[in-house]
Amino acid sequence: MSLLQSTSARIGTLDAVAQTAARARQAQLTKPPGALGRLEALSVQVAGITGSLRPPLDQRAVIVMAGDHGVAQQGVSAYPSDVTAQMVLNFVAGGAAVNVLARQVGARVRVVDVGVASPLPAHRDLIARRVADGTGDLTLGPAMTQAQAVQAIEVGIEVVTAEYAVGLHLVATGEMGIGNTTPSAALTCAFTGASPAAATGRGTGIDDDAWRRKVAVVEQALAVHQPDPADGLGTLAALGGFEIAGLAGVILGAAALRVPVVIDGFISTAAALAAVAIAPAARPYLIASHRSAEQGHAIALGHLGLQPLLELDMRLGEGTGALLAFPLVEAAVRTLNEVATFAEAGVSGPTDPNEPGHDR
Amino acid sequence: MSLLQSTSARIGTLDAVAQTAARARQAQLTKPPGALGRLEALSVQVAGITGSLRPPLDQRAVIVMAGDHGVAQQGVSAYPSDVTAQMVLNFVAGGAAVNVLARQVGARVRVVDVGVASPLPAHRDLIARRVADGTGDLTLGPAMTQAQAVQAIEVGIEVVTAEYAVGLHLVATGEMGIGNTTPSAALTCAFTGASPAAATGRGTGIDDDAWRRKVAVVEQALAVHQPDPADGLGTLAALGGFEIAGLAGVILGAAALRVPVVIDGFISTAAALAAVAIAPAARPYLIASHRSAEQGHAIALGHLGLQPLLELDMRLGEGTGALLAFPLVEAAVRTLNEVATFAEAGVSGPTDPNEPGHDR
Repeated sequence: MSLLQSTSARIGTLDAVAQTAARARQAQLTKPPGALGRLEALSVQVAGITGSLRPPLDQRAVIVMAGDHGVAQQGVSAYPSDVTAQMVLNFVAGGAAVNVLARQVGARVRVVDVGVASPLPAHRDLIARRVADGTGDLTLGPAMTQAQAVQAIEVGIEVVTAEYAVGLHLVATGEMGIGNTTPSAALTCAFTGASPAAATGRGTGIDDDAWRRKVAVVEQALAVHQPDPADGLGTLAALGGFEIAGLAGVILGAAALRVPVVIDGFISTAAALAAVAIAPAARPYLIASHRSAEQGHAIALGHLGLQPLLELDMRLGEGTGALLAFPLVEAAVRTLNEVATFAEAGVSGPTDPNEPGHDR
Repeated sequence: MSLLQSTSARIGTLDAVAQTAARARQAQLTKPPGALGRLEALSVQVAGITGSLRPPLDQRAVIVMAGDHGVAQQGVSAYPSDVTAQMVLNFVAGGAAVNVLARQVGARVRVVDVGVASPLPAHRDLIARRVADGTGDLTLGPAMTQAQAVQAIEVGIEVVTAEYAVGLHLVATGEMGIGNTTPSAALTCAFTGASPAAATGRGTGIDDDAWRRKVAVVEQALAVHQPDPADGLGTLAALGGFEIAGLAGVILGAAALRVPVVIDGFISTAAALAAVAIAPAARPYLIASHRSAEQGHAIALGHLGLQPLLELDMRLGEGTGALLAFPLVEAAVRTLNEVATFAEAGVSGPTDPNEPGHDR
């Protein structure tokens, strides 16, 4: 059995006993029922993932997978592919937005070259696990062979497992790869049935012509590969990217290890679509951090049944949105545990116990 | 000149030089233009408020104003008025959600009795500035006299000024007052022109009958007082509450001191409506933290031209939503200052400088 297969098989269901206990405690806290809104459901989810109402959350990491894309040659991105490697060097130097936000929330940044095209020097903070020098152009053939896709997924599993070995309570997915919203749009179409025009983003700075070209590229990729959404691995190999496959591995590995995994934007969510297609049991371990400005993101989140915690019109990737959600996960767990109960605080409940109103 | 008058007169415009410098720096950071979404505008706002691109943000406080409401006798709340004092004791004991979240984000909690009805013991962590034992019933007469409203506002100014004297870089508004969504709905109607049915919340647990009763109370209050929205102080006195007036004072005081003020939910936003009616120059100093589940909140935010950072279906008050936004304010300032520029990091810009696309 491959590492991918054994990892997928190890993903369990959420701990129903812990979830029930978390719900019961929420009902006793000194606040109107439901008044903490989505933090309450989040606290129940984290209890179910970890099997504990009070899981430690201090050991944190963001795993940033980097890879390049053959399709970038078709003019789907405003930036040259060289920027992928340049940004990897920015990450290891600590100068990118992901580094800044990771410092703020106390997370380690783990940068992985899983398929960058340009040469990269050895660096003690760069995990060199390159499968190939970028993917093939998905309009001409598969982005990756199936063996390459498995290899990239297993890099993700191994990296998150190594982090777990030194302590990991909360993990975020991040990525860098010039051109990678194009494979993400193709994956979103393949897994959700959305049309290329609906799933392909334009954002600021991309004019109508560039957007139409990008939509045509996604249409062509789908026509060439005729992807079967039930075949998660095959679809990922045909349309994805090394960093996307690597993040699918991070998600599967985290779920197998019962570590809450906070997914970032459109590319990370495309990785989640692939991971859940490969192992549906991984889905309840996902926490959606934010809804990006990229138009396909809401479609992908909706297909996964995930509601993002933040909507800040961000579209940077790197794991930045996921890191911004870490304080909300912490707030959910802290309030569940640290808010006094009505009994402890000597506070009266609602006037009419049949009418558990919230209105103050 | 009263403290209220001198404070209002002292509120200046935002620092345009600092805002321009912040925008210029955002454009040089190693990210596609605009990719940090709303964090970018937030960084520019904070620069304008503080006059600095890199203001310190480590000294933080949430000011929780507590007061009771004569109108609570009309059955508009599911909780008895005694809960206001009980929750004040919970706050000073550190057991409420506001305490938990304040610990998480490193904020001091300052609890002020500005008009609670029940007796409260002296406590070193309770600021005893009670104007009266709760307001009058706004359906029968003014909630406060104009002199009482000024007194409560000035309590807020004095409390925030005292915090500033020991160090204050970021302040959140919080409140506790059984029944206080009713005066908040009345204030929202008075200042925005919304109908009582649109501005009055029902939330979970309040059935149709209770909601209709509450709407009728708001309608009656408006009919009795015929508030003039141009008369901020008169409207606040007629329809408001001591904690709402106190928070209006916190907002005015913070604006005069050039401290960014993060407003919480519906009640805090009603206080902001009053503050901005009294001193329109205060508006640019406001940061809206979240949109609560209370239906009138979006109306009040829209009237102020504020877009909330979070939408988590919370409806707790206390300042909890405002504290959850502190990490976002910090993230905005940190990314502006700590992300490397393209020149520093040796990263290429977009392929076509006339097309500053974001797509990766």
